[in-house]
Amino acid sequence: MDRVYNFAAGPAALPLPVLETAQKEMLAYGSTGMSVMEMSHRSKMYLEIFERAQSAFRRVMNVPDNYKVLFLQGGATGQFAAVPMNLLKTEADYADTGNFAHGAMVEAQKYGKVNCIASSRDDGYTFIPDITPDMVSENADYVHITTNNTIFGTRYTSVPETGKVPLVADMSSNILSEEVDVSKFGVIYAGAQKNIGPAGLTVVVVRDDLPGSARPDCPKLFDWALQVKNDSMLNTPPCYSIYVAGLCFEWLESLGGVKAIEEINKEKSALLYDLIDNSSLYRNNVRKDCRSRMNVPFVTGDADLDAKFVKEAAANGLVNIKGHRLVGGMRASIYNAMPIEGVRALAEFMKKFEKENA
Amino acid sequence: MDRVYNFAAGPAALPLPVLETAQKEMLAYGSTGMSVMEMSHRSKMYLEIFERAQSAFRRVMNVPDNYKVLFLQGGATGQFAAVPMNLLKTEADYADTGNFAHGAMVEAQKYGKVNCIASSRDDGYTFIPDITPDMVSENADYVHITTNNTIFGTRYTSVPETGKVPLVADMSSNILSEEVDVSKFGVIYAGAQKNIGPAGLTVVVVRDDLPGSARPDCPKLFDWALQVKNDSMLNTPPCYSIYVAGLCFEWLESLGGVKAIEEINKEKSALLYDLIDNSSLYRNNVRKDCRSRMNVPFVTGDADLDAKFVKEAAANGLVNIKGHRLVGGMRASIYNAMPIEGVRALAEFMKKFEKENA
Repeated sequence: MDRVYNFAAGPAALPLPVLETAQKEMLAYGSTGMSVMEMSHRSKMYLEIFERAQSAFRRVMNVPDNYKVLFLQGGATGQFAAVPMNLLKTEADYADTGNFAHGAMVEAQKYGKVNCIASSRDDGYTFIPDITPDMVSENADYVHITTNNTIFGTRYTSVPETGKVPLVADMSSNILSEEVDVSKFGVIYAGAQKNIGPAGLTVVVVRDDLPGSARPDCPKLFDWALQVKNDSMLNTPPCYSIYVAGLCFEWLESLGGVKAIEEINKEKSALLYDLIDNSSLYRNNVRKDCRSRMNVPFVTGDADLDAKFVKEAAANGLVNIKGHRLVGGMRASIYNAMPIEGVRALAEFMKKFEKENA
Repeated sequence: MDRVYNFAAGPAALPLPVLETAQKEMLAYGSTGMSVMEMSHRSKMYLEIFERAQSAFRRVMNVPDNYKVLFLQGGATGQFAAVPMNLLKTEADYADTGNFAHGAMVEAQKYGKVNCIASSRDDGYTFIPDITPDMVSENADYVHITTNNTIFGTRYTSVPETGKVPLVADMSSNILSEEVDVSKFGVIYAGAQKNIGPAGLTVVVVRDDLPGSARPDCPKLFDWALQVKNDSMLNTPPCYSIYVAGLCFEWLESLGGVKAIEEINKEKSALLYDLIDNSSLYRNNVRKDCRSRMNVPFVTGDADLDAKFVKEAAANGLVNIKGHRLVGGMRASIYNAMPIEGVRALAEFMKKFEKENA
């Protein structure tokens, strides 16, 4: 079995030990005589798997007791609608820091007054604009941010202060990659397919006082209060994705948790940024204090050379390194499951390619 | 590896050859060097898997060219909202034939005028009430039915005539179990976890003229026109569930398709109904001409004896046979993936149990 190093932005690489466990348990989980995929979501055996995954997530994310964790469907895009449908009564503030941040804001406009209080859109999303308490609208029901911008390779390096106004964060592309003080947020949500597990699962962490006043026309699937009441099982949840995500949480814990992986992620991203900054071929266009540790975009400035890089990298087992069409060039997505050996292999290839194409 | 016969109502048994293929391909699919779970949904390798699953579904379901097939998230419960959000302008007609049929109707009431034109609710949902063209409301935008009622074990044995008004059907629990003339429907939708594949995938088959006028406040995820335009990839789809569903469609095709499985399903269900009808211990409360071929509920009339049956059946490798709490007793869900050997084993056990407890 030949495995490649997969730098895809999501769905993305998963930890090999997790895949090996899933493979081993595919036909019969423990002594149940059936695959996890075949289990009734109401059965005792599945509820154990579900609760084990929830508990492991609460531990690795250090979720305080006054927050609920929901395992839902629909991705972050679903929550782009669910957030305003649950919270927007008067007005909501959004920071426009990338493609998905923008999409979340546009979706919210369907449901009420939306203010764009900070934006780097006119600057090609190359930095994270500050948010200070005085920028928050007087009647804001919440402030929405996107903590890591997958396409542009930027991230918030500190949590904005929004006073009493709940902070809502889409953390799809950097959840569990660095320590986060959950108590600073009202709601955190994330699609699973980058740093949690397989696509099809959406994690929502919501403070106890926030659900309970969804719009009357909110689809019941998107009503957090109903989902809290039903322990995420208002209908059949994405059972198998939850099982695999649970294995990923336990894998992360076995490495030392988020604190430990944060150090590894610092080292992995520094390896690439240092190389880029010391190169005369590669360039990263993001303001240095806003660089993502999960998504490292870089260009040579020559589209043909970029294409050659992508092609030769793939031939060397370093795949899915093509940048998003909005940015071009290359992008190395190096989520938790990307081992440092993969990043080292990429760095070696980058150096070799630079030498050959100087 | 000891496998049981799993009579769960959903998520439910999957074909063993499908699980074996998924197991074999878990660490590396073909020559890609990665698991299907790790593939970018925009990558060539994944798009091939996606299109193969879509084509196989179109073939086994015999979907006409003027219908689109969408692979979405959110389950049938999501479509309970999506259907009215896309179609309800003036009024909509619903048939109330079970728990989920009722739930679909209640959800639709959030979005406009809803008429219950046929119901068996007052009779414990033990039969399917007729729908004739004269019962359809003059300004109905659509008529909604649930073709098989999982909890109560009933099914439509013919497609209601609704004239020019589109017929919308939740087929979650009997899709692909018998031949269906898709052209008689405007929309068919189904959660995957009964007769399609793993939970987390929702299939929507929609006639070309119907999407395109969703409510302005429809979450974009639920807007069929947007999903059609984006080939079901408005956001990351439930990639792995789609892959496994594709394997299930190809497995079904290898058996001879829906025509062939319909004969097997007739034989499987007849085996149980004949036994029940000729027994002095077991009873099925459904009107005979409305019996489901997928879900066979039965009771002894003695709750303690029912509990004993469930327990002893499980000890004999016949699991998840407890009836839904709304009905009590037992329920054997015998979807496509349940082999006739499993039904025979259950029948033998039923006879033995009757003898021992006469």
